[in-house]
Amino acid sequence: MTGDETDDSSREIMEATYRALCEHGYAATSISKIADEFSKSKSLLYYHYEDKEDLLEDFLGFLLDEFETKVASIEEKEPRERLVAVIDLLVPSNVNEEDMHFRRAVLEIRAQAPYHETYQKQIERSDDLILGEIIDAIELGIDSGAFRSVNARKVAEFIYSTAYGAIERGVTLDDKSVLTDGRQAIDDYVDSQLRSYS
Amino acid sequence: MTGDETDDSSREIMEATYRALCEHGYAATSISKIADEFSKSKSLLYYHYEDKEDLLEDFLGFLLDEFETKVASIEEKEPRERLVAVIDLLVPSNVNEEDMHFRRAVLEIRAQAPYHETYQKQIERSDDLILGEIIDAIELGIDSGAFRSVNARKVAEFIYSTAYGAIERGVTLDDKSVLTDGRQAIDDYVDSQLRSYS
Repeated sequence: MTGDETDDSSREIMEATYRALCEHGYAATSISKIADEFSKSKSLLYYHYEDKEDLLEDFLGFLLDEFETKVASIEEKEPRERLVAVIDLLVPSNVNEEDMHFRRAVLEIRAQAPYHETYQKQIERSDDLILGEIIDAIELGIDSGAFRSVNARKVAEFIYSTAYGAIERGVTLDDKSVLTDGRQAIDDYVDSQLRSYS
Repeated sequence: MTGDETDDSSREIMEATYRALCEHGYAATSISKIADEFSKSKSLLYYHYEDKEDLLEDFLGFLLDEFETKVASIEEKEPRERLVAVIDLLVPSNVNEEDMHFRRAVLEIRAQAPYHETYQKQIERSDDLILGEIIDAIELGIDSGAFRSVNARKVAEFIYSTAYGAIERGVTLDDKSVLTDGRQAIDDYVDSQLRSYS
């Protein structure tokens, strides 16, 4: 198999994992259910991965890579638009049904992190990346005069926790309006904390 | 068996469930592991409950009752102390190891709510109760002049989501400082949003 073929297969395994998680959730997803979603030889999948945990670790890395690609595309924006764009990646103003299903599975995986060190490490990297992006956007905004001079880390942590809380509650209660209202509240908070009066 | 004996047994089953959840987490807890923590006849436990889900539904109701008792004891306080006391119940300033273990299990249960209607119903009741308490404390504070005239529901939702996000992130990363910092951020937010300048 050439490198390109490996890359293609890897991506297809990740996409099969995504579909299985959306359909069954994390707890009910097995490696054989992921194999059911995979169009190529199932033995290829079993050859690559010992068990679900092994595959999921790679999947979390895949999500992080995807997130990094998205983040790279917004780094050229002005600070305010950049901050809004990072928040959009976390809690979009509109969440569709498929996204809700995927977020359910992600919450389950996050809840398993204390029992799976490999999950926890990937989630920690992902948290650091997102938090770092929010901090950068705020600091650039302060430097450019677009934002007031606040403690960027504190404001970023607050935004991040509020976003996660809205996701956790919205997913748990299966109520999109908790996410929508949460997003509105974050926008109001950003506006009241960061708006520059200069 | 007299009514008192039933009550005693019920409480002991709930306490056994608490210990099993702290020790094993939710996913790894089975009804037989709960029975291992139960000092009375195991057949009594199997007689009362068909499966883990059945028992956990009662356990969530038990947690809600406990919470209601705690809330009743703070309703006599002044609005500001009452608000702080509700926030204390959600995110205490200090979290010990046992509490972290229990919060892990609760996060797992919450993450399963979209797949278990009975869990979801109990969690919804619990969310409504806590949110209602925060709203009441803020509204009483506004009426008494202790707080500024804000939209009590919006501020309460924001506090609640931030608290849940700090819990979710702290538990996922197994990092108590996320909880402590989150609590501090909520205190600062309450202070800046509600402090009355009159």
